[in-house]
Amino acid sequence: MANFQKLTSRQEDYSKWYNELVVKADLAEQSAVRGCMVIKPYGYAIWETIQRELDSRFKQQGVQNAYFPLLIPKSFLSREAEHVEGFAKECAVVTHHRLMNDPNGKGVVVDPNARLEEELIVRPTSETIIWSTYKNWISSYRDLPILCNQWCNVMRWEMRTRLFLRTAEFLWQEGHTAHATREEAEDYARRMLDVYADFAEKIMAIPVIKGVKSANERFAGALNTYCIEAMMQDGKALQAGTSHFLGQNFAKSFDVQFLSKENKYEYVWATSWGVSTRLMGALIMTHSDDNGLVLPPALAPTQVVIVPIFKKQEDLAALMEKLNPLADELRRRNIRVKVDTSDQSSPGFKFANYELKGVPVRLAMGARDLENNTIEVARRDTLTKETMPVEGICGHVERLLADIQYNCYKKALDFRTAHIRTCDSYEEFKTEIQKGGFLLCHWDGTPETEERIKEETKATIRCIPLDPLPGFKEETGKCMVTGKPSPRRVVFAIAY
Amino acid sequence: MANFQKLTSRQEDYSKWYNELVVKADLAEQSAVRGCMVIKPYGYAIWETIQRELDSRFKQQGVQNAYFPLLIPKSFLSREAEHVEGFAKECAVVTHHRLMNDPNGKGVVVDPNARLEEELIVRPTSETIIWSTYKNWISSYRDLPILCNQWCNVMRWEMRTRLFLRTAEFLWQEGHTAHATREEAEDYARRMLDVYADFAEKIMAIPVIKGVKSANERFAGALNTYCIEAMMQDGKALQAGTSHFLGQNFAKSFDVQFLSKENKYEYVWATSWGVSTRLMGALIMTHSDDNGLVLPPALAPTQVVIVPIFKKQEDLAALMEKLNPLADELRRRNIRVKVDTSDQSSPGFKFANYELKGVPVRLAMGARDLENNTIEVARRDTLTKETMPVEGICGHVERLLADIQYNCYKKALDFRTAHIRTCDSYEEFKTEIQKGGFLLCHWDGTPETEERIKEETKATIRCIPLDPLPGFKEETGKCMVTGKPSPRRVVFAIAY
Repeated sequence: MANFQKLTSRQEDYSKWYNELVVKADLAEQSAVRGCMVIKPYGYAIWETIQRELDSRFKQQGVQNAYFPLLIPKSFLSREAEHVEGFAKECAVVTHHRLMNDPNGKGVVVDPNARLEEELIVRPTSETIIWSTYKNWISSYRDLPILCNQWCNVMRWEMRTRLFLRTAEFLWQEGHTAHATREEAEDYARRMLDVYADFAEKIMAIPVIKGVKSANERFAGALNTYCIEAMMQDGKALQAGTSHFLGQNFAKSFDVQFLSKENKYEYVWATSWGVSTRLMGALIMTHSDDNGLVLPPALAPTQVVIVPIFKKQEDLAALMEKLNPLADELRRRNIRVKVDTSDQSSPGFKFANYELKGVPVRLAMGARDLENNTIEVARRDTLTKETMPVEGICGHVERLLADIQYNCYKKALDFRTAHIRTCDSYEEFKTEIQKGGFLLCHWDGTPETEERIKEETKATIRCIPLDPLPGFKEETGKCMVTGKPSPRRVVFAIAY
Repeated sequence: MANFQKLTSRQEDYSKWYNELVVKADLAEQSAVRGCMVIKPYGYAIWETIQRELDSRFKQQGVQNAYFPLLIPKSFLSREAEHVEGFAKECAVVTHHRLMNDPNGKGVVVDPNARLEEELIVRPTSETIIWSTYKNWISSYRDLPILCNQWCNVMRWEMRTRLFLRTAEFLWQEGHTAHATREEAEDYARRMLDVYADFAEKIMAIPVIKGVKSANERFAGALNTYCIEAMMQDGKALQAGTSHFLGQNFAKSFDVQFLSKENKYEYVWATSWGVSTRLMGALIMTHSDDNGLVLPPALAPTQVVIVPIFKKQEDLAALMEKLNPLADELRRRNIRVKVDTSDQSSPGFKFANYELKGVPVRLAMGARDLENNTIEVARRDTLTKETMPVEGICGHVERLLADIQYNCYKKALDFRTAHIRTCDSYEEFKTEIQKGGFLLCHWDGTPETEERIKEETKATIRCIPLDPLPGFKEETGKCMVTGKPSPRRVVFAIAY
């Protein structure tokens, strides 16, 4: 049962508000295994919709799904120098393949005779195992491009974890493509970034900035990391998806060459790109309020809940004569409807519960409505309600869902716009950045300057935007720290 | 590129035929990790259809998807005595959470300082982690039933592996339900068995026998294991799905009690049920032939392939003027169509390739067809072809697909019928069982007799059928080994 102690408010403690909301809205919870979460049915239903939407977009880009092993030989990781540097410190390592009865007591212990010759790593990402496989799939330019994706679990042994945002195990998709030319691979990495951005804005109603990462923030083994960055309601940045141009690094590490049209052996060009259950965190922190979740209709497992208000069972029967055809008509319009006829809890309790769960539209009908042929329509995003004639209500609800979807996006965009500003003085930066939001600043392009800023303020370069941000013009200038020339402003923020 | 060395025939070496077919048809291959497979895009597309079909059937039964951790604390396994006995010997064990640079050389080694306090097991099945979670979800009868499923990967460290049939890692779904009463849980376990049987027969076109396992073959920790058993073309049995009634075993091990309507604390009743990528093996071995895969249309990624036969590009253009509208019309009828206009390979090569891949219907059109307004229609299951007028071809193809689906089932059923017989003498049994097929025999119901038969003949009791098999009447008799009374015949076979 949902727990109706009031949520901590965002104002009071944003971080606590988030942690409470994830649990109270039945999205996820900590498991018995350190850092690993249980994704509960309500949270998983949202993730399934995210998967379905992304998967059909991927397939439109020619992508095919496949499945590669969970475990990766330790030696594979070492093949790409930067890659192993990036992941070795947070690997779950399988060393044995059998347990045995404890000879000194009860329970089971690891069987020392079942030690593996080579340790296996639970995949933190799959470039190495996939490129070792692609070696067998590729011999000629005719075998290219290969456009594979897998939906799977991965592990990164994080020390400080938070539900959805940073967990030791998480679910994601990872696309891995192989191309004959540098241009084609770079284009593909950019194209998948566009797919992510379009999905984030249209379906998740989250405005994002498309950009490229600085060298410090690049994926371990990539030549270029493209990303989409979103702003949460506390003004912090959240990286919502990345698409990497990997050059020929993995092809060289696993010796994957192809015979070109010109009859020459060349190394294959690669991309990889992924989004994870972290998106659930972005979704929650972008739209929700002190009453609970706010879900954009495109992702809401229940888009409309219908609540008859009754005391006696015969009142319910009379109400349902009106409400059942209405629910059917909404379903015919492909709207996900739930009718709550339970007599286990009061209308007030039900209303609070559906608010907590973020159901976009609530329809309620009581005895007086029945008499007047009216119905109460409440929308979750604005928390407003009005009583309307039943006549024409289905069309109204359909338009309302579209309006809520748009309004979620608009509200998040307005918030972001209000919290982006330029900053040209490093002194000012140090205080401004603590207020949250994105600061557009000039930077000399060196890792040293970026590192210094990070150490002194905790802020990082979220991205070098691909396009000028709305309301800001492209301009050259001088690095706010060193005064050296800067070709354009970059986005600084404190990030999740 | 597909490899067109001829397949080994089934007659010659059934096992070799299977291994070659899986690889040549681009379904799966061995990976660099012992016993773990790579599921290639074509194989995975079939698995995705299996998932989609099953998932919608589960949801019709009120099931919700969720996700539970990959890793299970070692001590959890020990809580249920039979369960740990069943799985401890084939567990992948995570003992460390970090690698470090090898101080004596290059590459990385396990960091001895990163040893876990308690080892974690890669899930072989999730009863233990799920029931430790359900403990927090259940306090009253109002919280029941819980009907959860997860689609995930699992590991069982098998020593002898075969693609799809027995792999160290495999993909599956595992449903785990919690109920207030014994009756409800038993009913649910039976109901999910019916879901599996219906899916196997209608979608996979595989006839199955529904039954219950003998004690020897029961799931570790179950009171009763229901199963569906299928017969492969070599006469061996393959267990295609299981549904377990777990009683209160896991509720007791993890202390999961609920307050009943009568205000008494009681242990919760459980079921679990699963099917895996093993189904891919069953699919291949039930329908395919010496030319390659035969796929029932319901599971074929491409249901119809259209091949224009041309020499010059202008001939192709003329053919496509006819074929494009035809492809569009088939797609409007929700048929999965591929048009192969490539000029990289000959029609003969293409035909052999689509046969190898099991595409149910092939349409081919050349210059003469174009003149005559005809088209060649070839069906994969019977390898027959005929030239037909283009007029009305879409309706014909639609009926043909339904017919192929039915014919796949019918052919498999006829094969099974021809290979089931009764046997009342154990001497006869010993030679008969080596010929393959299912033998219906009387058995005294003891594990000892079953064990003896297994040791002497390798045959096991596949199941005690829930319903009399078609053509066989229910009858009591005497155990073929001991002569003791037997209430009914049971199914013996040598199994995968």
